[in-house]
Amino acid sequence: MPQSLLKKMRKDAIDIFHAGLEAVDPIAAVRRHVSLNHGQLIVGGKTFDLSQINALWVVGAGKASGVMAAALEEILADRITGGLVVVKYGHAVDLSHISLVEAGHPVPDKNGQEGAERIRKHMAMAGENDLVICLISGGGSALLPSPAPGLSLTDKQKTIQVLLSCGATIHEINTVRKHLSSIKGGQLALSAHPARVVSLILSDVVGDDLDVIASGPTVPDPSTFQDCINILSRYRITEKLPKAINRHFADGAQKKIKETPKPGHPAFDDTEHVIIGNNFQALDAARLYAESLGYNTVMLTSLMTGETRDAAHFHATILKEVAQSGHPAASPACLLSGGETTVTLKGKGKGGRNQEFALVSAIALENVSPMVYLCAGTDGTDGPTDAAGAIIDNTTLARARTKGLDATVYLDDNDSYHFFQELGDLFITGPTRTNVMDMRIALIG
Amino acid sequence: MPQSLLKKMRKDAIDIFHAGLEAVDPIAAVRRHVSLNHGQLIVGGKTFDLSQINALWVVGAGKASGVMAAALEEILADRITGGLVVVKYGHAVDLSHISLVEAGHPVPDKNGQEGAERIRKHMAMAGENDLVICLISGGGSALLPSPAPGLSLTDKQKTIQVLLSCGATIHEINTVRKHLSSIKGGQLALSAHPARVVSLILSDVVGDDLDVIASGPTVPDPSTFQDCINILSRYRITEKLPKAINRHFADGAQKKIKETPKPGHPAFDDTEHVIIGNNFQALDAARLYAESLGYNTVMLTSLMTGETRDAAHFHATILKEVAQSGHPAASPACLLSGGETTVTLKGKGKGGRNQEFALVSAIALENVSPMVYLCAGTDGTDGPTDAAGAIIDNTTLARARTKGLDATVYLDDNDSYHFFQELGDLFITGPTRTNVMDMRIALIG
Repeated sequence: MPQSLLKKMRKDAIDIFHAGLEAVDPIAAVRRHVSLNHGQLIVGGKTFDLSQINALWVVGAGKASGVMAAALEEILADRITGGLVVVKYGHAVDLSHISLVEAGHPVPDKNGQEGAERIRKHMAMAGENDLVICLISGGGSALLPSPAPGLSLTDKQKTIQVLLSCGATIHEINTVRKHLSSIKGGQLALSAHPARVVSLILSDVVGDDLDVIASGPTVPDPSTFQDCINILSRYRITEKLPKAINRHFADGAQKKIKETPKPGHPAFDDTEHVIIGNNFQALDAARLYAESLGYNTVMLTSLMTGETRDAAHFHATILKEVAQSGHPAASPACLLSGGETTVTLKGKGKGGRNQEFALVSAIALENVSPMVYLCAGTDGTDGPTDAAGAIIDNTTLARARTKGLDATVYLDDNDSYHFFQELGDLFITGPTRTNVMDMRIALIG
Repeated sequence: MPQSLLKKMRKDAIDIFHAGLEAVDPIAAVRRHVSLNHGQLIVGGKTFDLSQINALWVVGAGKASGVMAAALEEILADRITGGLVVVKYGHAVDLSHISLVEAGHPVPDKNGQEGAERIRKHMAMAGENDLVICLISGGGSALLPSPAPGLSLTDKQKTIQVLLSCGATIHEINTVRKHLSSIKGGQLALSAHPARVVSLILSDVVGDDLDVIASGPTVPDPSTFQDCINILSRYRITEKLPKAINRHFADGAQKKIKETPKPGHPAFDDTEHVIIGNNFQALDAARLYAESLGYNTVMLTSLMTGETRDAAHFHATILKEVAQSGHPAASPACLLSGGETTVTLKGKGKGGRNQEFALVSAIALENVSPMVYLCAGTDGTDGPTDAAGAIIDNTTLARARTKGLDATVYLDDNDSYHFFQELGDLFITGPTRTNVMDMRIALIG
């Protein structure tokens, strides 16, 4: 096989990835969903007559919310009354009508807490004829810490830490999280009420569960304080938590503290949620671009979760079938998948879920030729590394052997980063401004 | 959703499964690959002038080898000089020119050992102008136990048992197995030499690895006695094995015992291997039938392996994507996959890998509607149960709740059989005469 073919396929894979990224670029996404036409503001399919709107507030949080705010300012300019977005340190952008606060992520800090407080104050001012546009993207939950009255940020963080290590599900963790906060679980919408609220959401959650994205600040919360007490007792962690937390839940269960707003609450009568970018949109744009390059494309799923090794192993059996029988697509084939897998760390190496996915695939697919496989996070970050992921081909393992590297040793040590670094197979993009989880692009020639 | 639609989809799934089975029925498969035309015997694309053949022997082993032999007799009748096939108890068929022995499976017994001995005697008689047709199907390895001289059947069985529980790979286990046998690892072909040998193979192995199917009696074996010693020492099980076994390997490594025939050995100059049926053929026929029913079909893979739960979980994400976005196929969609997963038993219930796959899917896919999912073994047997597998739909979980059954409790106890038995969702076919591992047929309306 000529090396030039592999080289071309590697370039194709990277181009396909970037075509996917473009579709979920927050600026493009905001422009697609918001327009202003003769005083009519069209947001996510809904039309607002600006002459009937008293004030237009823009609030939000998330790594991409700064860029999203800039795109909104470009469209709405002086029509924006004010507002504030909270972004991660280093993600600031210039804004003229909307304030911007940089704060801690993934560990929340004082800055985020102050940002949340300022947003709540803006919302308290919003009246019946006001419109609130809420910009939400990945990281929004950590960037908007707002401990309920009587709780400290430390209390909250300790509670979440215990929950994360006790085996609780993400749904259970969110139930607790919402009941420790005065902004999550629909409480942002509640404080904006009676203003109308439209949320523009860049989803970093598998399945776009509105309740989960940034802990659903504008979404009704069916869960209760009593649920929280039950969860703590189910995992026998009641004793491990700060006393203030247990007292808070007990007070809540006895109706001494207000519950989060439930489905049917009037605060949600005039709220709307628009997913302006998600994993599926990225994959679908990538797929169309791959098609334009002449590949037979199959989009397998945007919903992949589970342990990385198992998912990569299963996925490899599909790619082997392509090579053997031309199913589910004849070569030249491009198979795409996305979502977010997890890695149960056993070794002490450096890596991320995408690099580990690529390493498992490199081992499983050595005999599929020609083959190129790009696995990367759309935010340009994979685990605690400077790479977005890795791009392998069917010569990866042979090149490793030449250098005396044993792929299985690196895999067992969760050390995919150093393996690919040695081979030049890391895929490095730098920050991308967006985050819709991971994309995997497999090309079989 | 009208119940009649689900009912129709359940019927479709079963019909699609049977269309797949038909394609790998051993009689049909033999007929497709063997024909007699004016004294010319065409086997798997090779033509033999019967007037130039002194004797035509038919030997073989496997659950389906009796039926395969009967199909051969139908075509060749008096041209067959003689031979013998070994089948599992209860799988006998009437044969007129070929002898048949019933023997133990999966635990080998004396009958199988005698059968193997008689086959070796037949092969010793085969001369230069003879043709041997070797019929191999699933179970062939256990049905042809032929301990090397100086070893007992008990020694062999004990060794394999230790290997199975020490974490050795299937490749390592087979390396040892072949060096404990006087018929496996190409030794059947060696004893037939200089006769020509054509093997007709119904594959029950993922990827149709000839070396693995029935431990490759007619396939060169690159592994050595020294490899066996290394494997025992790698897993530190040397001490756990009968002394006779260790002595046997030591003698072999010192060339006191003949090695298995290696690639390039003249015994393989005139051997041919024809896969007359495998998982892919079944899936492909099933796919074509599903297409004729109007489904948009995707054949994902015939090579699925790995832990059942993980594979089912991953597969479910693809089916959810079908329901959400029409990828990788628009509804009405039929997604097919095959291979053989494993189950790591943790509970004490009754079930099989197909029933467990179905149970995981029932939980994961409750909200995909309408949906029907058939998971079954092509041999009609799933684990130690009388069911071939299970057929679920999107009402399975709701029906279970009505009966007070908690799906996750049954899953945790590996008790899928009793769960589906209560619901009438077992899929029972009885023995099917064939075995090309498992088929999974998912229909999304």
